[in-house]
Amino acid sequence: MLTKDKQISKAVIKRLPRYRRYLRELQKKGIEKISSKDLSKLIGYTASQIRQDLNNFGGFGQQGYGYSVNNLHDEIGGILGLDREYKMVIVGYGRLGQAIASYISRNEPQFHIVGIFDVKQIIQDVQFKDAQIMTCGSLYNFVRNEGVEIAVITVPSEKAQIVADTVVDAGIKGIWNLTAVDLELPEDIAVENVHMSDSLHALAYYMHELDEEA
Amino acid sequence: MLTKDKQISKAVIKRLPRYRRYLRELQKKGIEKISSKDLSKLIGYTASQIRQDLNNFGGFGQQGYGYSVNNLHDEIGGILGLDREYKMVIVGYGRLGQAIASYISRNEPQFHIVGIFDVKQIIQDVQFKDAQIMTCGSLYNFVRNEGVEIAVITVPSEKAQIVADTVVDAGIKGIWNLTAVDLELPEDIAVENVHMSDSLHALAYYMHELDEEA
Repeated sequence: MLTKDKQISKAVIKRLPRYRRYLRELQKKGIEKISSKDLSKLIGYTASQIRQDLNNFGGFGQQGYGYSVNNLHDEIGGILGLDREYKMVIVGYGRLGQAIASYISRNEPQFHIVGIFDVKQIIQDVQFKDAQIMTCGSLYNFVRNEGVEIAVITVPSEKAQIVADTVVDAGIKGIWNLTAVDLELPEDIAVENVHMSDSLHALAYYMHELDEEA
Repeated sequence: MLTKDKQISKAVIKRLPRYRRYLRELQKKGIEKISSKDLSKLIGYTASQIRQDLNNFGGFGQQGYGYSVNNLHDEIGGILGLDREYKMVIVGYGRLGQAIASYISRNEPQFHIVGIFDVKQIIQDVQFKDAQIMTCGSLYNFVRNEGVEIAVITVPSEKAQIVADTVVDAGIKGIWNLTAVDLELPEDIAVENVHMSDSLHALAYYMHELDEEA
């Protein structure tokens, strides 16, 4: 695999999953190679943007041939860390937690949900696929004993920080934060936030802007 | 309200909901003014970044006083288009659609869910708050007759484009796309995507990167 020779900007990182997603669609259609121009039409970035992004990682294209779909898909997967598997717990098993569990088990084979946690005693001892559903009291020991790497947090906002502290103490490496608040975390913990309200408010802005243009 | 005198970059727009969210927290605590330095500690952007962002809109701070929390909150709300109300439908009422409906009704008073749509006949005639749950066959007429402005799409990926086409034909202004695919839309339709997999893959990258640093 090609190695990164410099720090990659966050904007590029945010685009890589999108490249990989489109390449996967091409794979499904049996397409083996693609030019940056055709990739551009498909993804909606300019061909020059695409070449520039992929040059960050040494570039994978060949002059006059374009990109090998399989190769580029796998290389990007490798860069993203998707060439390995992850143990994951979901904390908070309301509607959103259930939606996420079902989404991941259907679409993300590298991510294994090994345990699910909620405050509600009523759901104790129920299973989701191979994962046992437990109460939050056993979260720390479970994460520690099972060597869980990722915690998905979907609890109410006011509980988010204490859940984060618990999993960090237990040795978690990454947090996928689906609550409405930002978390205070040590610098060696990876975090990715999905703030629903921020996204909805950005939509309102785009509508407002289009309205003013019209 | 202060007016925008130039095109605002997408990066700034993405930060505004976050500013507003923190200002709301300050309001709840009864805090009336804040310096860009204290705002910086709270939000995690540099004070200079904050001043620069807010200068895009004419700046709201006063030398030696800082920002008025209420004023800044409302001004940002106005810029985002949150000083008015929106009629919204949710299309797709599986677990994710249910989670979103419940989240919006609890946290987003400006967004009124006026109708919910799903393919399943079984849920017909059931209500969520004031919104009737209907089958997708009536989506076009409902959006058109009620003057609905926003459609939240949470259907399976392969149905996403046809739902988008239907609501666009019916006069929708904005789409909040929570499916795994990008939509082809006319240029005068606002769209904001929440691609769960892209976000999860970015998390994997950050973990991978921290791992290499360690």
